[in-house]
Amino acid sequence: MARIVMKFGGTSVADMDRIRNVANKVKREVDDGNQVAVVVSAMAGVTNQLVAWVSEASTLYDAREYDSVVATGEQVTSGLLALTLQNMGVGARSWLGWQVPVRTSAAHGSARIQEIETDELIRRLDSDEVVVIAGFQGIAADGRIATLGRGGSDTTAVAFAAALQADRCDIYTDVDGVYTTDPRIVAKARKLDKITYEEMLEMASLGAKVLQTRSVELAMRFKVPVQVRSSFTDEPGTMVVDEEQIVEQADISGIAYTSDEAKITVQGVADRPGVSAGIFGPLAEANINVDMIVQNVSADGTKTDLTFTVPHADLARSVKVLSELKEHLGYADVTTDPDVVKVSVIGVGMRSHAGIASRMFAALANEGINIQVISTSEIKISVLIASRYTELALRALHSAYQLDTP
Amino acid sequence: MARIVMKFGGTSVADMDRIRNVANKVKREVDDGNQVAVVVSAMAGVTNQLVAWVSEASTLYDAREYDSVVATGEQVTSGLLALTLQNMGVGARSWLGWQVPVRTSAAHGSARIQEIETDELIRRLDSDEVVVIAGFQGIAADGRIATLGRGGSDTTAVAFAAALQADRCDIYTDVDGVYTTDPRIVAKARKLDKITYEEMLEMASLGAKVLQTRSVELAMRFKVPVQVRSSFTDEPGTMVVDEEQIVEQADISGIAYTSDEAKITVQGVADRPGVSAGIFGPLAEANINVDMIVQNVSADGTKTDLTFTVPHADLARSVKVLSELKEHLGYADVTTDPDVVKVSVIGVGMRSHAGIASRMFAALANEGINIQVISTSEIKISVLIASRYTELALRALHSAYQLDTP
Repeated sequence: MARIVMKFGGTSVADMDRIRNVANKVKREVDDGNQVAVVVSAMAGVTNQLVAWVSEASTLYDAREYDSVVATGEQVTSGLLALTLQNMGVGARSWLGWQVPVRTSAAHGSARIQEIETDELIRRLDSDEVVVIAGFQGIAADGRIATLGRGGSDTTAVAFAAALQADRCDIYTDVDGVYTTDPRIVAKARKLDKITYEEMLEMASLGAKVLQTRSVELAMRFKVPVQVRSSFTDEPGTMVVDEEQIVEQADISGIAYTSDEAKITVQGVADRPGVSAGIFGPLAEANINVDMIVQNVSADGTKTDLTFTVPHADLARSVKVLSELKEHLGYADVTTDPDVVKVSVIGVGMRSHAGIASRMFAALANEGINIQVISTSEIKISVLIASRYTELALRALHSAYQLDTP
Repeated sequence: MARIVMKFGGTSVADMDRIRNVANKVKREVDDGNQVAVVVSAMAGVTNQLVAWVSEASTLYDAREYDSVVATGEQVTSGLLALTLQNMGVGARSWLGWQVPVRTSAAHGSARIQEIETDELIRRLDSDEVVVIAGFQGIAADGRIATLGRGGSDTTAVAFAAALQADRCDIYTDVDGVYTTDPRIVAKARKLDKITYEEMLEMASLGAKVLQTRSVELAMRFKVPVQVRSSFTDEPGTMVVDEEQIVEQADISGIAYTSDEAKITVQGVADRPGVSAGIFGPLAEANINVDMIVQNVSADGTKTDLTFTVPHADLARSVKVLSELKEHLGYADVTTDPDVVKVSVIGVGMRSHAGIASRMFAALANEGINIQVISTSEIKISVLIASRYTELALRALHSAYQLDTP
């Protein structure tokens, strides 16, 4: 007997047929003698509709009211799944965030889970009742519903797995696992059997939309074994595990990309101490996250060009901040380029293997792709390139790191 | 300054445009210096969709899960209205049943309100905040959401008006008041300025679908002045008030009808004591509500025919119960007629005026309409007639009681 948490995303509970499919999967685990807690998202599309109404009601909306409205999506599916399970003869009841309760921080709209009361849930599990949890929600100290931000049901699932000391947390979604890269672009992309928490974290934050980043952080911290798998097949998916559990580690596990960033170049800035602070300080104050940065010394050595990336959505605002600084900083010009993509190779193996970066640069050079900015961390190398090269770069790198074949 | 409760039904909050219309009406009351609590229903059609999903999930559904699912409709509209008000510069917050809390009985799906905690709400009202209440819901002693049954938002509104000692409870709906009879059938039907609680109660239970019956009972018990009015015009509606507040009372205030009943005749029953109990006892045990009853002595005086009405939905079940009794009771036959309508004239004035009933019978006889069953109470007379005469009967009675002209 194992205690497992199963999480089903919006496409997996999109209508009553799919909810019955979910109930069948749950029943199978119950019939195998397992204790099951299920976390559900809202039906696909429902949250978007609710968010659209909220935005229409009020442009600068009260996040507490937003939370009360959008949390209804998961409330509906949790009740419908409990009913469907009951109808199949499986004991079940739904639990809303405030009923468990799942206590969260005060940050309505992007709250963090602080504590989950599990005594009653464990009693129910011990008496063979399936616990159906409305994902994405909890209750803040003000007594009002707080939601965890988009994709928050993943975090709910991992947090319950940790709190219930579950043996496994299965995240059922519309893909059958984590791939070496985006299979819609690279036909030779392969499903990974295993990936480490750290790699998954980089994959998630670099554009692979399989798991919410925070859920991976939480799984890593509490060592929750997470499996990403499809709700439409019975194939095993990808296990997200501790590094020690992976015996043969490839140099590179995966290649991610994101087009969420735009490039800004500030040209002809005086090359003297404090100039970076003069630019990045005001951007930070405006709550703009600067990601990749590179500085080029100009021909005569007295001036420099500063290139960096910001989220697409913040591009116009960034330019406005910079234009207000023009007089004070005395730069020559600001140019922007929204048509860029950040491509990243990721792997814990690169810690122990030299030459990973040079192989990346050679592969891109071979295809005539110019690298605009580079940034690295212990387990990933990211490059910024023109977005028209995205497919070409992904395919070249996938081959260069021998990911095409198992 | 007055303290008022405003209630808006599903068609009044059917989309964001209509919610803005509602917010405008609320703002006008606030601008006039009033304290306002608003009770909202779910968007029109939403509750039906949720109920359909529940029925699809499980035929014999768990009412606690039903409640959790269907209560989301009002949760959404309460949040959206609060946001819309905030966007207009009106301080507002939404309150769910469990947040107030509205404590209810344990009868999930048709719970009764037992207690409303008002201290915090009154604090909010006193500090000029609009209190937006999700209708139709409360929390039972088991800590789970309980709903009040269809139309329950009317009851929520009246219960809050009583608990908050409001000066007025305005029920905004898609009709502009209570009419002397159904204006879709009788063109000369007129809107009433005032109607007594007792008359409204009879109208509601006899087919005028303007207010939920329980909300009228509650209003009568706590002497809450209720106004039924349109959310699409600014005209005054119909005040539901105490009898003393109506100076000139007409004999008859209104004419209601319902086609929800079917007629059953048990022919050739032995005319001896206990025979009625032998029939109506088993029907009551099967939870079938028998309404109108008439007994005819047959020609030779030893046998009798018993005619009565039951809800349409229970007709088949009633016949089954009766057929199981055939041997024991020894009746000759059972005939049924689903094509009947119950027409009722209602008015507290009939207490003090003779001849109300004879005028009814004469008016129907004039039109050649046969009366099949009669039942009366202190303030109403109901007759069962063939449903094809519905329009004719309503128009004839409307004229006979001089309701055509003010």
